Amino acid sequence: MATIAFIGLGNMGNPMAANLVKAGHSVQGFDLMPENLAKARDNGVTVMANASAAAKGAEVVITMLPAGKHVVSVYEDIVPGLKDGTLLIDSSTIDIESARKAHGIAARRGLPSIDAPVSGGTGGAAAGTLTFMAGGSAEAFAKAEPFLQPMAGRVVHCGEAGAGQAAKICNNMILGISMIGVAEAFVLAEKIGLSHQALFDVASTSSGQCWSLTTYCPVPGPVPSSPANRDYKPGFAAALMLKDLKLAQEAAQAAGVATPLGAQAAQLYALFSGLGHAGADFSGIVRMLRGDVG
Amino acid sequence: MATIAFIGLGNMGNPMAANLVKAGHSVQGFDLMPENLAKARDNGVTVMANASAAAKGAEVVITMLPAGKHVVSVYEDIVPGLKDGTLLIDSSTIDIESARKAHGIAARRGLPSIDAPVSGGTGGAAAGTLTFMAGGSAEAFAKAEPFLQPMAGRVVHCGEAGAGQAAKICNNMILGISMIGVAEAFVLAEKIGLSHQALFDVASTSSGQCWSLTTYCPVPGPVPSSPANRDYKPGFAAALMLKDLKLAQEAAQAAGVATPLGAQAAQLYALFSGLGHAGADFSGIVRMLRGDVG
Repeated sequence: MATIAFIGLGNMGNPMAANLVKAGHSVQGFDLMPENLAKARDNGVTVMANASAAAKGAEVVITMLPAGKHVVSVYEDIVPGLKDGTLLIDSSTIDIESARKAHGIAARRGLPSIDAPVSGGTGGAAAGTLTFMAGGSAEAFAKAEPFLQPMAGRVVHCGEAGAGQAAKICNNMILGISMIGVAEAFVLAEKIGLSHQALFDVASTSSGQCWSLTTYCPVPGPVPSSPANRDYKPGFAAALMLKDLKLAQEAAQAAGVATPLGAQAAQLYALFSGLGHAGADFSGIVRMLRGDVG
Repeated sequence: MATIAFIGLGNMGNPMAANLVKAGHSVQGFDLMPENLAKARDNGVTVMANASAAAKGAEVVITMLPAGKHVVSVYEDIVPGLKDGTLLIDSSTIDIESARKAHGIAARRGLPSIDAPVSGGTGGAAAGTLTFMAGGSAEAFAKAEPFLQPMAGRVVHCGEAGAGQAAKICNNMILGISMIGVAEAFVLAEKIGLSHQALFDVASTSSGQCWSLTTYCPVPGPVPSSPANRDYKPGFAAALMLKDLKLAQEAAQAAGVATPLGAQAAQLYALFSGLGHAGADFSGIVRMLRGDVG
């Protein structure tokens, strides 16, 4: 069992840290918000005064922060004080450029590092069933895997530094696009005399099949567990989908790639969020397309 | 066993009619193209001089024609001469307005009718494994089902008159959108250092999962049976996807529904077709997004 520093104890970080404690690790945590620290303490995390104090003496440092600038700033702050061989795992969802910068800070100090953003949301974080998409050397990945397992349903090594972030934004761009596509089809069906169930029955077993339809159906009825059945309470908030689509657009523009539907999806989620629905589940965009929300 | 008129013996109609002959039905066929008639004759179809002659004395009339105007014109031509009780099945993929007009022509003569467009392509037509999406009364559907079975893998009753066409265009709009979304993600992945296989491994078991990715993957490798592995030989030609997306846009505009990604997908397939790739498989649009085709 290891001493693990966990920096960033929000809605995701807190339950993730709790699962590391349950697995028998000694977890030293830090967050800027006192209420997050209080929760962490209740979960058995040893609360520290700042990020450097949390990282001191740790064999593994895990960060779970809102954006690339936070990760780079924390790495610049703590990496000089880490002991030799400390493994750095960043599970934040951030831009690829910042992810590579963070890897560079670790590499210059001779430390192994991986980017390992997750999918699965707060439910997956609590249940310890997150999917980790990891980027970094095979050696760093091999070192990281046992520490990810207590928080994970699945851990995938996607490639070199930044590949975890790349996999997450590419996957979520497909997700955002397919959700809008499915939502458009349901709204069209409504207006041309095709029931939700009939469209579901045809498309779910045909070439229109997709996770957005068959697992996360954006209209109530066909998939009882989907957020549409609980008034679009998230789930996966529209604001987070917008964040991921913006990261994809940043990466596409930096790489000179045209992603016309990805760009349009980002615009539509910006519109939906701007209409006051940033906190609704992202599948709720069907209501905007229908003209149900203003 | 029944006498069935089959009007429209092209790439789809001919193998469909052949499967009805194999099932023991007596099939009277007509097509405007002499070479289609020659093929039909080889398949055991009794070739007639025109549509009215083919329909004469038939208990069932099946049409498989390019567009709504052809179906309406054939119905106007043949319906007055049909005997009482003749069942009309239109398997063409056409606009909903024309489909309802055709139902109306049948109804005014007191005849049962269904619209029953198919998916599955020429391969499914030859193998007798098409999916039929049917619209019409429960009585008409019940009458039609045994005649569809020899051509079908699956027959779904989608609702009243026009619901079969509605299901097909809604499904195929999801398909066109999700294919472009998947293609954009692969092209983005290529430029940001994520391998095709890594993206496939993550997305195929995650929220990006869709038929366009897991059955019909638009890049060679991950799904060996997909058209990407045979230089985008169709399969399902881009021209046919464009036709279906245009039908969806017509229906959306007539109904006053906004389908922004459906509209964009239609534009992108129009561009791809205009660049000379109408005959390529629709998954080949990945090459345009990558900048591989001019």
